[in-house]
Amino acid sequence: MNSAAVSEKEPIAIIAGNGLLPFYVAKAARDAGHRPFIVQLRGEGGNDWSGFEQMEADIGGFRPVVMALRKRRIEKIVLSGGVNSRPELLSLRPTLSVLASIPAILAKLRSGGDDKVLRMVIALFEKHGFEVVAAQSIAGDLLAEAGALGRHAPDREAEGDIEAAANAARTIGAMDIGQGAVSVGGRVVALESAEGTDQMLQRVAALRKSGRISARRRGVLVKVCKPQQDLRADLPSIGANTVRLAAAAGLSGIAVEAGRSLVLGREETLRAADTAGLFVYGLEPDLRS
Amino acid sequence: MNSAAVSEKEPIAIIAGNGLLPFYVAKAARDAGHRPFIVQLRGEGGNDWSGFEQMEADIGGFRPVVMALRKRRIEKIVLSGGVNSRPELLSLRPTLSVLASIPAILAKLRSGGDDKVLRMVIALFEKHGFEVVAAQSIAGDLLAEAGALGRHAPDREAEGDIEAAANAARTIGAMDIGQGAVSVGGRVVALESAEGTDQMLQRVAALRKSGRISARRRGVLVKVCKPQQDLRADLPSIGANTVRLAAAAGLSGIAVEAGRSLVLGREETLRAADTAGLFVYGLEPDLRS
Repeated sequence: MNSAAVSEKEPIAIIAGNGLLPFYVAKAARDAGHRPFIVQLRGEGGNDWSGFEQMEADIGGFRPVVMALRKRRIEKIVLSGGVNSRPELLSLRPTLSVLASIPAILAKLRSGGDDKVLRMVIALFEKHGFEVVAAQSIAGDLLAEAGALGRHAPDREAEGDIEAAANAARTIGAMDIGQGAVSVGGRVVALESAEGTDQMLQRVAALRKSGRISARRRGVLVKVCKPQQDLRADLPSIGANTVRLAAAAGLSGIAVEAGRSLVLGREETLRAADTAGLFVYGLEPDLRS
Repeated sequence: MNSAAVSEKEPIAIIAGNGLLPFYVAKAARDAGHRPFIVQLRGEGGNDWSGFEQMEADIGGFRPVVMALRKRRIEKIVLSGGVNSRPELLSLRPTLSVLASIPAILAKLRSGGDDKVLRMVIALFEKHGFEVVAAQSIAGDLLAEAGALGRHAPDREAEGDIEAAANAARTIGAMDIGQGAVSVGGRVVALESAEGTDQMLQRVAALRKSGRISARRRGVLVKVCKPQQDLRADLPSIGANTVRLAAAAGLSGIAVEAGRSLVLGREETLRAADTAGLFVYGLEPDLRS
């Protein structure tokens, strides 16, 4: 890659929530020749942005972000990372006033799962003339492919667990509750909701330790897209830490949807999986229905 | 109640798993004039059975139980309480051999949620000529009635949470995964699976404390029957401890299905709810669909 190619790429902004995802997206975008401008949401930090151009913004503070992006002639935005501190209605009101034309938005915000809130944020940016693009469109290397991504592959028992957990994960996804489930010996033992994947895996490890989950069957973590998910919001993602927690929970592997999920820090993630004897598997599109 | 009435009642056995439920069922049965014989499953204890005639049994040890019941001319059995230590296939084999006529039982055991395992145990007892009856049929006082059971009632926001959580709980119940869900501000933030209600409520308390759940909206716990549940297995139950944990999680109340859920230690439970300002509500049958 030469520097001319780099400078030809459009400027983009990454609105960064919490978790490692924004950092991996930013790195992948830079590797792909972009020069991302980071808008770190205050209170959702944790990433070291040295080496990146960046600003901090309050979740309710939409105007300074718009001004900063316009000044840099940035028209494309990637939303990345979770937002733990849910903005309360009151603090959002000044911003929402511009959205009076979008019906039922207040009702949606009141009852919103992640998906609903994200759609609202996307609508807000689009209303101001920005284009919200998917992380994978500027950092395609992050996407999981189909099949075994590492050295190990699911055996027959794991296939049963993949099916059971994928069914459960899709069902709770359709209700905008969560994206992940763990099945052990064909029995779903944990469903992900507001606590997130990491905490769910820690719970499974504790259940296993206390003898409430079979010690003889290993089990599988499955993460899937919510069926109605806007693919410009975060796709389900896994990383080396997911692998470590899955191993600690005694699982035999992790399955995600090929082309619709992200593997963060692929090399480190797959190395961790290979070492721990876990599979990382991308489900074929035709198995998704 | 006179002693003649007591002695007229049929002898019954209570197969006691873990949790407080078997104890409350035994007490309610005794109050109703039965003289229950307790079969405490080993390793699932915790209740003080002094004052009750009782024996201990291994989960795989079916024959001594059958002999003890026949000796006492007990024909009716109540199954009560959870079984945390899932019997492995190997340890059950000698017992299961008698069940060769029940097809697919091994496959069911392999992949069973609570519901499947319970049906299997019921089938096993019936095969040996016992009648398995519901706890509520000998201790009807335990059943929740419709409407507000204590001093407080759900407000409008709570009604929305009841609907959201009941929907989610029914959905995961239909998959034989769990019976409970918590909704806060219309958003389902926790789904119950192998960890059980108490741990789910503790998780909600932790999420609340860390700011990942709205501090301004309270939220509701809903427990419902699995649609396919054998009503002779444990109905969803709540007690004073559920109320205390719900209060610690910042919830405004608890809703269960009238006539299809148990309130254990009713007086203490409702007193705890009244004191903490929580409602305990029995959903009408026509709201269940």
